[in-house]
Amino acid sequence: MKYDIVVIGGGAGGFTACLEAKRLYPDKSVLMIRRDEHTLIPCAIPYIAGALGGDLNKDILPDSPLKDSGVEILIDEVVKIDRESKTVETKNGKVIGYDKLILALGSTSIIPKSLQTDLENVFIMNKSYNYVKKLIEVIKESDKIVVVGGGVAGVEFTDDMIRLGKNISIVEILPNILLLNLDEEFASIAADKLKEAGVKLYTNTSVTGYIGEGGRVKGVKLSNGMVLDADMVLITIGVKPNSGLAAEAGLKIAENGAIEVDEYMRTSDPNIYAIGDCALKRDIFTGSPAPYLLASVAAYEARIAVENLYGVKSVKPFKGIIPVLLTTIRGLCFGAAGLTESTAKRYGIEYVKETHETVDIHPGTLTTPNKITMKMLFSSKNYRLLGVQAVGGKSISELINLLAFAISRGVNIYDLHMLPYGTQPYLTASPIAYPVPNIASKILKRIFSSN
Amino acid sequence: MKYDIVVIGGGAGGFTACLEAKRLYPDKSVLMIRRDEHTLIPCAIPYIAGALGGDLNKDILPDSPLKDSGVEILIDEVVKIDRESKTVETKNGKVIGYDKLILALGSTSIIPKSLQTDLENVFIMNKSYNYVKKLIEVIKESDKIVVVGGGVAGVEFTDDMIRLGKNISIVEILPNILLLNLDEEFASIAADKLKEAGVKLYTNTSVTGYIGEGGRVKGVKLSNGMVLDADMVLITIGVKPNSGLAAEAGLKIAENGAIEVDEYMRTSDPNIYAIGDCALKRDIFTGSPAPYLLASVAAYEARIAVENLYGVKSVKPFKGIIPVLLTTIRGLCFGAAGLTESTAKRYGIEYVKETHETVDIHPGTLTTPNKITMKMLFSSKNYRLLGVQAVGGKSISELINLLAFAISRGVNIYDLHMLPYGTQPYLTASPIAYPVPNIASKILKRIFSSN
Repeated sequence: MKYDIVVIGGGAGGFTACLEAKRLYPDKSVLMIRRDEHTLIPCAIPYIAGALGGDLNKDILPDSPLKDSGVEILIDEVVKIDRESKTVETKNGKVIGYDKLILALGSTSIIPKSLQTDLENVFIMNKSYNYVKKLIEVIKESDKIVVVGGGVAGVEFTDDMIRLGKNISIVEILPNILLLNLDEEFASIAADKLKEAGVKLYTNTSVTGYIGEGGRVKGVKLSNGMVLDADMVLITIGVKPNSGLAAEAGLKIAENGAIEVDEYMRTSDPNIYAIGDCALKRDIFTGSPAPYLLASVAAYEARIAVENLYGVKSVKPFKGIIPVLLTTIRGLCFGAAGLTESTAKRYGIEYVKETHETVDIHPGTLTTPNKITMKMLFSSKNYRLLGVQAVGGKSISELINLLAFAISRGVNIYDLHMLPYGTQPYLTASPIAYPVPNIASKILKRIFSSN
Repeated sequence: MKYDIVVIGGGAGGFTACLEAKRLYPDKSVLMIRRDEHTLIPCAIPYIAGALGGDLNKDILPDSPLKDSGVEILIDEVVKIDRESKTVETKNGKVIGYDKLILALGSTSIIPKSLQTDLENVFIMNKSYNYVKKLIEVIKESDKIVVVGGGVAGVEFTDDMIRLGKNISIVEILPNILLLNLDEEFASIAADKLKEAGVKLYTNTSVTGYIGEGGRVKGVKLSNGMVLDADMVLITIGVKPNSGLAAEAGLKIAENGAIEVDEYMRTSDPNIYAIGDCALKRDIFTGSPAPYLLASVAAYEARIAVENLYGVKSVKPFKGIIPVLLTTIRGLCFGAAGLTESTAKRYGIEYVKETHETVDIHPGTLTTPNKITMKMLFSSKNYRLLGVQAVGGKSISELINLLAFAISRGVNIYDLHMLPYGTQPYLTASPIAYPVPNIASKILKRIFSSN
């Protein structure tokens, strides 16, 4: 059995790679190998218990687009890659040849030793169907829920479980939730929204152990000495790249455990590509390895890999990832792209910043407006756009994507001051108050006054 | 009386220019001269009768931001510019000196001879406070309303008046409404929405005359021989630049009647700038004069003018306008940026096109999704992005702004295929189905197969 293109993994990266491969090379045979019969749409797993009514089948990536485009699917687990013979070997004993191999192996939840336990009802963010099925059942039965880790996943689960009337506590080791994606002033707006809804936040706090009863979790012990009652615990601390298979095949692995890839997603073997959570990400500004493990990144890495699968076509090398956070908490929307103040400081990048507030309609009397607060960071010497954060209504999402694109194009303050844009009373801020050029002009004011 | 910077006009362009001038040059004195005591926010005039409850005062540009930043305001009309003495003369006999003069004179509704009448209750799109006040009163009293011209203004008035239960007919000389901004397949979705709401559309039709009674309009005669009953008529055919004052002062006027400006919004007099509807617009692709008279354009032209008021600062010349349409009809949102198929044909620009359909959330089971349909045009030889049109939910608006920005940066299909973007279940299409890179990959498929 041999295929022109074999893709290992059925998530956002693997799925996109298969569709893209059949689109760009309709004559090539394409095989997807994945472990799960059904792949859950990863981004919406936090919303299954509440918004999706507990029905996992409402969150399935359908196979029909794959099948319709001629992709074959094998439900099996690859246990070995033989680069010499250009074959992969599966758990069920199949040996499958490839001409080009795309690794979309995903990531696995991190669970530190101190949090490992045999107690029932302690969950991590494992995305496999049966694991999530059990998780959802236990969420439904539980009243007191402790979420360990106030990152995006933990906060989105919390937002959904609030609707189910659960008593939720978040335990976060940092001074606030979401601080890996947002600066404090935005994180605190999110935290206040959760607190208003009755969520208890324990920041600067870690979990030191569990209390069990009859083999089930009954509580968690905190570093501040408190004990929280718990019918269940959900650990959303972070994830690590699945690179074991690649390492065993002798592919180059980066220090942070991700599979090394070049500007076209090629691994150290020219016939093997890696995309998504398992592949090394580099920050666009510094080139440093960075933990930007997002489904959207997996999808565009898939497109880059497939475009350049049979020789480099785009020629324009992919320079690195711009992290984009989009989330919604109690109906309020948060977005961020590029560097925050804390990441800029960590990288040693000097910046200037400005903030602008407006509303997302004009005039504000037309319907109920959402307040928009936007902050942007620019390099303090050459005024290149470094990052943006915003809170507001739903229009924030594509506005952040606009600015992620602007970051990728290396724009500076002069470019943003003359940004072309359209406005409409029901759909956007006013022409005068549109946030991006206003922030640019506030920075320009400083530049002009310093000369 | 002398000011460093004098701005004539209080609309989106003049207002932004004044704020921007005080921001970038806080030590300069800035005077706004405008005719109206109260300036209506022009974009929302169509929504005063219905959504704003008939209250004009809910659609006023507030003077407080101007006053707070130190801008002085003179309610008067400039009747002469004397370039020799660098002064302007007003109707009330004031003579005011300037160092730099910014013309934001706006535009006036076009009303062809054949549509001119002395009958009452025939209105044009005059934006002055008292004119609009009368217009709103008559809309309220009227039952049968004929809108002449199915462009954006006419359609937005119609959308608002539907809420008031009016019997509305639109008479449009072209084969469909909105054809100056959208291609037929998008225009027809808009037309269907209006028809569903009971609006009668007469396309390929013009008004040939009126029927009056007691000095008031009672009906209109159509080119197809029909007569429509009418309690009022609203003519929204188009506008022409207000350049009379500039012409009398000897400034260079373009063939289409707009004030000639260079890449930094300078007129033929280096101390006089022109912005907004009165200033010449050039299409970004062809450099041809183009009728892109939009409040958002006025605002960013204001920023360009002010930035470069005392010597060229941005150095990057402004290359031309990308027209951006954003509108909403019966809750459905329409957007367009750059060239449509018909404008591309008119300019003789060869293009290829592709369409993608998706929904604005993922999975589609999460809440009620809005279907997004997006079409993009690319140059058929170098695959530069030429234009985009979309219909969908509200997120269309900033997505269109993203693509307007992409057009301004001269991106091609390879850039869009590897577009960086973020996704979130409640806020965007899925990573796999996100429309922009999917359209790019459909075009790539053709490029790859042709080699």
